[in-house]
Amino acid sequence: MASEVVLLHLLHSPFATRVRIALAEKEVEFESREEDLSNKSPLLLKMNPVNKQIPVLIHKGKPICESLIIVEYIDEVWNHKSPLLPSHPYLRAHARFWGDYIDKKIYPIGRMLWASSDHEEASKKELIEIFKVLEGELGDKPYYGGDTFGFVDVALIPYYAFFHTFEMLGNFSFEAEFPKLVSWAKRCMQKTSVSKSLCDQHKVYEVVLELKKKLVVE
Amino acid sequence: MASEVVLLHLLHSPFATRVRIALAEKEVEFESREEDLSNKSPLLLKMNPVNKQIPVLIHKGKPICESLIIVEYIDEVWNHKSPLLPSHPYLRAHARFWGDYIDKKIYPIGRMLWASSDHEEASKKELIEIFKVLEGELGDKPYYGGDTFGFVDVALIPYYAFFHTFEMLGNFSFEAEFPKLVSWAKRCMQKTSVSKSLCDQHKVYEVVLELKKKLVVE
Repeated sequence: MASEVVLLHLLHSPFATRVRIALAEKEVEFESREEDLSNKSPLLLKMNPVNKQIPVLIHKGKPICESLIIVEYIDEVWNHKSPLLPSHPYLRAHARFWGDYIDKKIYPIGRMLWASSDHEEASKKELIEIFKVLEGELGDKPYYGGDTFGFVDVALIPYYAFFHTFEMLGNFSFEAEFPKLVSWAKRCMQKTSVSKSLCDQHKVYEVVLELKKKLVVE
Repeated sequence: MASEVVLLHLLHSPFATRVRIALAEKEVEFESREEDLSNKSPLLLKMNPVNKQIPVLIHKGKPICESLIIVEYIDEVWNHKSPLLPSHPYLRAHARFWGDYIDKKIYPIGRMLWASSDHEEASKKELIEIFKVLEGELGDKPYYGGDTFGFVDVALIPYYAFFHTFEMLGNFSFEAEFPKLVSWAKRCMQKTSVSKSLCDQHKVYEVVLELKKKLVVE
């Protein structure tokens, strides 16, 4: 591990995508190590012995775990450009609140859609409710961060790669239901930091379908 | 709402207890408004329309929600004394990691112990595993924050009020299983900020038993 910055990750993980975006925003070069979650590397188990999950950022040999905590760390360490969290404590708390909301809501409900054949209707309804709340918070701002791309944008935009999956499994159209959210996502995708970090929507859908086959006991 | 700092809370909530401890550490006076969760106040619904949960700190009329986010906010705004998070980015990330671990692990498993009659054995085993990990992280340090009481201490110590409940429902002894954790908790309780903020262990057990009666369908 000769590099100063190493990322243990997975291409299609929305959590890992956040970290790749934050590093790209700060123009930090890193050594990429993709993990195979069915056969985790000794390095991953050593660096994140508690949760054994990706992403892990290893900076000067020391591990930082949990995606939003890593994003805050990157923002604090490489603070010379592209601030992600605002400087005012109230606005920082507000951004953290929405990061936490995204974390607690989207992935667990998304996972229910592909890991279970029960409660599918309830999960679809809840997923739509979550995006309604998120579109409401965006309002007419160009970014969640206001005029500039920030912490909440980094937290949410990786799920753009899952929009197609959510549409297929949830039987709704983002364009029709959440036009502001789609405009925001396209605006974010114009940034190289985002477009180069996100997986292709169709590739993600393929991965999820494979996972669904394994997880759902028919 | 004439006061500059208002707290919407509940005495026995571990999440609310964190906020009371942080405010006490900073010697911030506040107006206490206890909520009745079966009949939430219009103020709570207005101030936390997304999650509708306590605690909510209202500072100069503006709401901050989610207990650990509130604790960070308090630490950033009242930064003249008793720093809770360390100043080094790596140590901050480390503290946030453990705050997140405590948040994701203890309450959900504790709740399974009193809300369900299924999987009780598995929940008990998992709860013991969680405290084993937490005792390991404490090691021989006086506090999670090292030599001084800090963010992780604030996150975890409210559960000391639940130790008796966990012992009764989990059929184990904290003193026997986790002597370092018990010494740490007693050390924290010597601080007025902690002792005046925590509920009595037996009162908490009574509340949980009442809740268990309502929640468990025999």
